[in-house]
Amino acid sequence: MSDVSDWWSTAIIDMEPGRIALRGHPIQDLIGNISFPAMIWLMLRGTLPTEPQARLLEAALVSAVDHGPQAPSIATARMAVTCGASLNQAMASAVNLLDDVHGGAGEQAVELYQRIDASGDVAAEISRWQDERGKYLPGFGHRFHKPTDPRAPRLMALVRDAAAAGACDGRFAEIGEAVERHLATARGKPVPMNIDGATAVIYAELGFAAPLARGLFCLSRSVGILAHAWEQTEQGGRNKGPTPPAYRWTYTGG
Amino acid sequence: MSDVSDWWSTAIIDMEPGRIALRGHPIQDLIGNISFPAMIWLMLRGTLPTEPQARLLEAALVSAVDHGPQAPSIATARMAVTCGASLNQAMASAVNLLDDVHGGAGEQAVELYQRIDASGDVAAEISRWQDERGKYLPGFGHRFHKPTDPRAPRLMALVRDAAAAGACDGRFAEIGEAVERHLATARGKPVPMNIDGATAVIYAELGFAAPLARGLFCLSRSVGILAHAWEQTEQGGRNKGPTPPAYRWTYTGG
Amino acid sequence: MSDVSDWWSTAIIDMEPGRIALRGHPIQDLIGNISFPAMIWLMLRGTLPTEPQARLLEAALVSAVDHGPQAPSIATARMAVTCGASLNQAMASAVNLLDDVHGGAGEQAVELYQRIDASGDVAAEISRWQDERGKYLPGFGHRFHKPTDPRAPRLMALVRDAAAAGACDGRFAEIGEAVERHLATARGKPVPMNIDGATAVIYAELGFAAPLARGLFCLSRSVGILAHAWEQTEQGGRNKGPTPPAYRWTYTGG
Amino acid sequence: MSDVSDWWSTAIIDMEPGRIALRGHPIQDLIGNISFPAMIWLMLRGTLPTEPQARLLEAALVSAVDHGPQAPSIATARMAVTCGASLNQAMASAVNLLDDVHGGAGEQAVELYQRIDASGDVAAEISRWQDERGKYLPGFGHRFHKPTDPRAPRLMALVRDAAAAGACDGRFAEIGEAVERHLATARGKPVPMNIDGATAVIYAELGFAAPLARGLFCLSRSVGILAHAWEQTEQGGRNKGPTPPAYRWTYTGG
Repeated sequence: MSDVSDWWSTAIIDMEPGRIALRGHPIQDLIGNISFPAMIWLMLRGTLPTEPQARLLEAALVSAVDHGPQAPSIATARMAVTCGASLNQAMASAVNLLDDVHGGAGEQAVELYQRIDASGDVAAEISRWQDERGKYLPGFGHRFHKPTDPRAPRLMALVRDAAAAGACDGRFAEIGEAVERHLATARGKPVPMNIDGATAVIYAELGFAAPLARGLFCLSRSVGILAHAWEQTEQGGRNKGPTPPAYRWTYTGG
Repeated sequence: MSDVSDWWSTAIIDMEPGRIALRGHPIQDLIGNISFPAMIWLMLRGTLPTEPQARLLEAALVSAVDHGPQAPSIATARMAVTCGASLNQAMASAVNLLDDVHGGAGEQAVELYQRIDASGDVAAEISRWQDERGKYLPGFGHRFHKPTDPRAPRLMALVRDAAAAGACDGRFAEIGEAVERHLATARGKPVPMNIDGATAVIYAELGFAAPLARGLFCLSRSVGILAHAWEQTEQGGRNKGPTPPAYRWTYTGG
Repeated sequence: MSDVSDWWSTAIIDMEPGRIALRGHPIQDLIGNISFPAMIWLMLRGTLPTEPQARLLEAALVSAVDHGPQAPSIATARMAVTCGASLNQAMASAVNLLDDVHGGAGEQAVELYQRIDASGDVAAEISRWQDERGKYLPGFGHRFHKPTDPRAPRLMALVRDAAAAGACDGRFAEIGEAVERHLATARGKPVPMNIDGATAVIYAELGFAAPLARGLFCLSRSVGILAHAWEQTEQGGRNKGPTPPAYRWTYTGG
Repeated sequence: MSDVSDWWSTAIIDMEPGRIALRGHPIQDLIGNISFPAMIWLMLRGTLPTEPQARLLEAALVSAVDHGPQAPSIATARMAVTCGASLNQAMASAVNLLDDVHGGAGEQAVELYQRIDASGDVAAEISRWQDERGKYLPGFGHRFHKPTDPRAPRLMALVRDAAAAGACDGRFAEIGEAVERHLATARGKPVPMNIDGATAVIYAELGFAAPLARGLFCLSRSVGILAHAWEQTEQGGRNKGPTPPAYRWTYTGG
């Protein structure tokens, strides 16, 4: 039988009255001395990043904060506050929607890159991915940003800088670019890397497990969610629906 | 009748295919050039902070990431992943619990400080607060950290540094300390400022609206929530309950 | 110090291996022998309702299941499944929006009725309510259903039948009707009772605490939420936004 | 380009001012005339059930309302209200945890039964299931209720009654019993059907799609979630953690 004191266990935090240590570091030594991205890294990995590693992580976190109220998550956050939800409640409602389809592309792209890294065969891994999960390849192409998602090339330039500075080795950047070339050839037109493909390169370069790509995206997008929830709070409104009241919906019943 | 294109409106983000501007700044100019705390400020306020302002905000964000699995939010995140929840879903479940009692003390402390700032009368405002909302004063005392929450003095030292550097004027720090002195006299023993009282000083100094103190706390604590959800994912487990199975509960029925 | 076995305590359920008793009734004696509304009553109240009481509760639960995808909660549920959310996750996202403004009117109406019941002064209590919480009176008028919400008169007829059958005494029905008459006189036009005002009459007649009016509404509306989430699952779609992609939003920044 | 009025479409509800029709039935004709389980059926299926069908569905809904505060969902609901969450917010937090592992066994059991129904080969389908998803077979065995989950035999007796009354044909009951016999032989000891296996028999007999088994479970368990959230509200408490404060957790760091 498990004893109560063993039921919850963690290597993240140790506490006594008057003392809090995160990953072995007294909290007062961290506050004011490490950056917020370094703290995120420390909490998730157990060690502190180097300066160039923290800067690369920071760029990824900065890049994904918002894509507008047309996104289901942001729309939900804005509607929630008009229903009486508190800010944390609105944030929760929205983050809950960052699931496989809306928030999972970065995680999936890391998985794809890791498969290619392991086997070395871009074409075979893309083919296997599509056989298993369908034609859509996570991290490439964008239904709105034609021809190019403006975030991706900027992030990739920073990866190259970071690789030159020794923060990472650049092999996942090469893999991402190889996927991009493969798709362009296979489809006869450019299918450029999007933000999910580019942040996935960063997270893979920095050694994060694939599921954490989704978690880090949630930390980033939570910023935009909060900003929109707050803006809607100031705009006011009661029970704001998705479309103006006059539109309602099409009834498809008999 | 509202037109559809006016139904959703925002000053946060502007987009065209291939172009994303946040608060008027093209996204590619922000990525790699501003810190994550500066991005948070920009999204919530519309302007960029100075360097010392961003550093003070960063210290507050770093300070509040975790307080262990005994907190209802962290326990919920850890249980959620053992129920099959995705990481974003676990984060949502947990952030939903950062409500008035669990995540609202910072917001309430900012309100209290602002009242004192407006009237100039510490004793009268504390008395009014307690008449309206009960004896518990947000931001002071801690049921676990005796005698002192180690995060508060460190944060207050950084506020003094920031005030010296011109990042803020220090008057909310004085208000917080005045509340602390008042409570010590009134109760005949120290009731030291805790993390919520100290981060509230920072958010008030930096000019954030009170509700955003809760929102910023959610951004910070989401880091710990993610770290614990991920650690539990790696620990495994199915349908983890709050206590070991052998304990169950006390039946109080007839 | 609390002992672990006392930390969680409940009068709702008692269990041993092979035995489950809800409110003192072995579960196998309830299954197939009591109605679902009677089970809801038993769980919330500790006793079994009479047949007429259960039927009146059932009518209220049937009445509130849906008001269409224009409601923020239903829209959220439908968007959630297109983001990859599981059905329970979509339901959670939607129920989270049934807060004070979207799901609280029934609870508020019960409070208003109870105040009137206690003081006997309709005009004074309406005036006090509006002083405290603003002009909007919960449970009366409807922004869409002009002249009359079709659910309210049907529910009120059932309350009268139930009162005649001895299931309740009818005094909250009289209070609701008195509020309706007062508003018609005060505003010089009919402001008819809506579904929240009518279900509040039922919940007050049946002796439910005001906050449970919100809880019961959530049980009822969860049916519509599930139906819409499932219909959207079958319709398909990825990352469905609130409006068609072509509309986006109006940028109000500088 | 999609037109706005087509963006949201549904066969569930049709509305005009003063008129609400659910699945083609004016709401006032349903209120007081059909049971709550019949309404659930109508909303999910589009047609009304027969009386025996509605009664069998009702038994399943009654059976699954609660399994105590040791369940992660119930614990979360109870903790949530002590954090300041509203009742709908507490319900949302809890339903979010009824995911694959905590709330998905019924859905999975329906899938398993449907596979066996399609192929007719119990042993082969069990083997295929275990190859794909691991040893654990949804709907059979119980970690707490030894030897038998008291809900399952009662539900199965009602299925036999319903089959005799023509409400269903009984073939999924036979499949469930065949799985039970197969497991007993294969493991050399009884592995009795549990509540998920028995409600899955009912949902399959009644023709519900497998994912709706999860949805219906959520409707049922929401009753217990609400009852516990309300009981905790009346018990009071602030920031209730999973274990008494004295226990905290085991630190497993270096």
